Amino acid sequence: MLMNKSNNIRNIAIIGLGQIGLYLYNELKLKKKEIEIKTGKKINIVAISAKNKTKKRRFKIDKKIFYSNPLNIFSEKKVDILFECIGQSDGVSKKIVEKALKNKVNVITPNKALIAKHGDTLAKLAEKNNVNLEFEASVAGGIPILRTIKEGLATNKIKKVYGILNGTTNYILTEMENTSETFDRVLQKAQKLGYAEPGNPKLDLNGFDAFAKIRILSALSFNTKISKANCLMEGIENIKLEDIKIANQLGLRVKLLGISEIINGQLFETVHPCLVSKNTYIGNVNGVMNAVITEGKPVGESVLQGEGAGPGPTSSSLLSDLLSILRGNIKYPFGISSSKRRSIKAFNNDDYTNSLYLRFEVKDKQGVLSLITNRLAKYKISVKRIIQTPDKKNKKATIVIITHRTTEINARNCLTIFKKNKNVLKFPTLIRLYN
Amino acid sequence: MLMNKSNNIRNIAIIGLGQIGLYLYNELKLKKKEIEIKTGKKINIVAISAKNKTKKRRFKIDKKIFYSNPLNIFSEKKVDILFECIGQSDGVSKKIVEKALKNKVNVITPNKALIAKHGDTLAKLAEKNNVNLEFEASVAGGIPILRTIKEGLATNKIKKVYGILNGTTNYILTEMENTSETFDRVLQKAQKLGYAEPGNPKLDLNGFDAFAKIRILSALSFNTKISKANCLMEGIENIKLEDIKIANQLGLRVKLLGISEIINGQLFETVHPCLVSKNTYIGNVNGVMNAVITEGKPVGESVLQGEGAGPGPTSSSLLSDLLSILRGNIKYPFGISSSKRRSIKAFNNDDYTNSLYLRFEVKDKQGVLSLITNRLAKYKISVKRIIQTPDKKNKKATIVIITHRTTEINARNCLTIFKKNKNVLKFPTLIRLYN
Repeated sequence: MLMNKSNNIRNIAIIGLGQIGLYLYNELKLKKKEIEIKTGKKINIVAISAKNKTKKRRFKIDKKIFYSNPLNIFSEKKVDILFECIGQSDGVSKKIVEKALKNKVNVITPNKALIAKHGDTLAKLAEKNNVNLEFEASVAGGIPILRTIKEGLATNKIKKVYGILNGTTNYILTEMENTSETFDRVLQKAQKLGYAEPGNPKLDLNGFDAFAKIRILSALSFNTKISKANCLMEGIENIKLEDIKIANQLGLRVKLLGISEIINGQLFETVHPCLVSKNTYIGNVNGVMNAVITEGKPVGESVLQGEGAGPGPTSSSLLSDLLSILRGNIKYPFGISSSKRRSIKAFNNDDYTNSLYLRFEVKDKQGVLSLITNRLAKYKISVKRIIQTPDKKNKKATIVIITHRTTEINARNCLTIFKKNKNVLKFPTLIRLYN
Repeated sequence: MLMNKSNNIRNIAIIGLGQIGLYLYNELKLKKKEIEIKTGKKINIVAISAKNKTKKRRFKIDKKIFYSNPLNIFSEKKVDILFECIGQSDGVSKKIVEKALKNKVNVITPNKALIAKHGDTLAKLAEKNNVNLEFEASVAGGIPILRTIKEGLATNKIKKVYGILNGTTNYILTEMENTSETFDRVLQKAQKLGYAEPGNPKLDLNGFDAFAKIRILSALSFNTKISKANCLMEGIENIKLEDIKIANQLGLRVKLLGISEIINGQLFETVHPCLVSKNTYIGNVNGVMNAVITEGKPVGESVLQGEGAGPGPTSSSLLSDLLSILRGNIKYPFGISSSKRRSIKAFNNDDYTNSLYLRFEVKDKQGVLSLITNRLAKYKISVKRIIQTPDKKNKKATIVIITHRTTEINARNCLTIFKKNKNVLKFPTLIRLYN
């Protein structure tokens, strides 16, 4: 039924042969037959491109189809589907994707930075040229969350989507809890194991990676344009082993959550560490696992969990995009036509409201606790719980305060005074409690 | 791009106006506009059918398009897509689906009994007539698990799929643990809340419902024909409050699991109660929630969790099937062509191996424990743990034994002797430990 005998060969190009591109290249060769059975189409890799032609690689590449400059491919080869696996938000990544779409070549990419930044214009370009732009692998690795939102939950009214979207940071937080090792030690371990991005792990740690994914999830869940608003983004760099231990005593766990929801008709997107109860589902998503939770009507709460990173899971999603294209469907990249996707006003971050965990390192002197509680009272931040732990030897003390709900602006204004107070040794650590 | 101005109206018939059919009817009317935006197609409900035309219903129906006999619809109306919501494994359900497919009408159904029994022949019929047969809602309500296996994980080699596939039994087990009420009490509550099938809850309780879903999951996961083999199927009817309490002390929880896996190239499918650790993911899927876990290569373990029953979640899946059809894709019902789906030999149930929980109710007399342990020793079933609780007042005792791994046949042969032994008051309760 899906057969089209006269024209059942599809030519493929892979741009970028790093961890993901190379793994994909190998998988495509291994799964040729299976793909033909499932789609009725034969695939043929006609071009590959990377910076370095001669570098030693885990899988052997066919140098006869190697291009140093990927932009030259289209003039020499007929390409039906291009995989962009370089991963820049601009630069060659953007150029090659644009050129492909303009040449009526379908594009598949795991590049969340590119989609979060240029997804709207690229989607328009794809629609104009009647080709597909697919990016399942850009969010949560092997978890088919985008397809689930676009298709499986297509007619649900989604009001919230959130989850653990970065495997590296989740691994670090879990490992700190399990081994009582410091952030720096565990980060080194993560890099050794290949979880943290090789080289600069900053984009994982500071929340940027999770944030790009949240922007993509928002656009798909709410049928909106990708937001450009300034957002509340915090990473895990300031989470200390001490915080994890105290959380543990309180029955809580630190998780870096990405959250996107519609509040009063406005879009609120954020990434920050949260304290979640150990009894909750999200509190038990540990290690490198990712999980995405959607709240929709009529479906209720849906959870998808799986391995969020690494070439295996990513390749699984890239191939699911490939099959979707080979099966001959032209789809709107964001589920509906670009012309129907609306812009949405951003919710004011200042009004975001949470219970807070505040950890103060103070001099062990009389009057310091009342200084803090008075300051909180002045901003009408009421205290739910105080845990004071003296460190007599160093004449210091740790004061942890769990507050009732308060707004961001209130908390921020309240805490400024502690930037320079001789009795408060460091600016306090703030972690929001989730729900 | 998806527009087809000349012919963008699709006529719809809904057969069966019970809980699900009626809810769907209402949703389709409410979401007409949204469906048009997402697919470029207008939908038009041209026929509905149920046993009773005049019955009082939650939503008002259009009596002008009502048919008492659904088989008459095709001669009077042009139908593009038919929803079968009656739910029989044979009878009218089978007849109307066959007639629709032969008339080149696409079919969408949540009917697991029908698909588990006749899915292979119906899929062939759909392929022959070049129309779709979609049944996402037949497994795990609102969780888009079939689409995920067919598309999201399409090129993974799945070796195992398992999970909690029946919300009613999971609700009963959870509620027994939380309230310490008996099976019968909690079942009544479940029926009041509408979780247990109205009327006869037997198909939920005895594992049959979960089993139909496992057969469908197997076929999709392993690209095989639906198995007809005799399978190990046990429900929760024999689980006593006592078992749940003892499990609790051992850090375990009783869950009714459906499991399908390839063992030595053979298919093993089963549904039975399991004791799972409270620390595991599956041990924390509680209440009416469903969860499906797939183990695949290269993607690793994927989890999908969500509300498994009720008209809301079911309708979400029915509409996702509708959108898939409206977007114009003709797909193989089981992901690949029927001609490519192979039959697979069944694994011998006798060789299935587990650690066992055995609960004996015995007379509180000397020698009874050694009678039991000797019998176990004779079958080389080694004991990991024994918990003996005397009930002096009634001159009884409960002996719980956790064994090391043993085969089904071994356990069965070993236990036969206890069918008639004057010191063993009841045939022992056996619950398998999961992993």
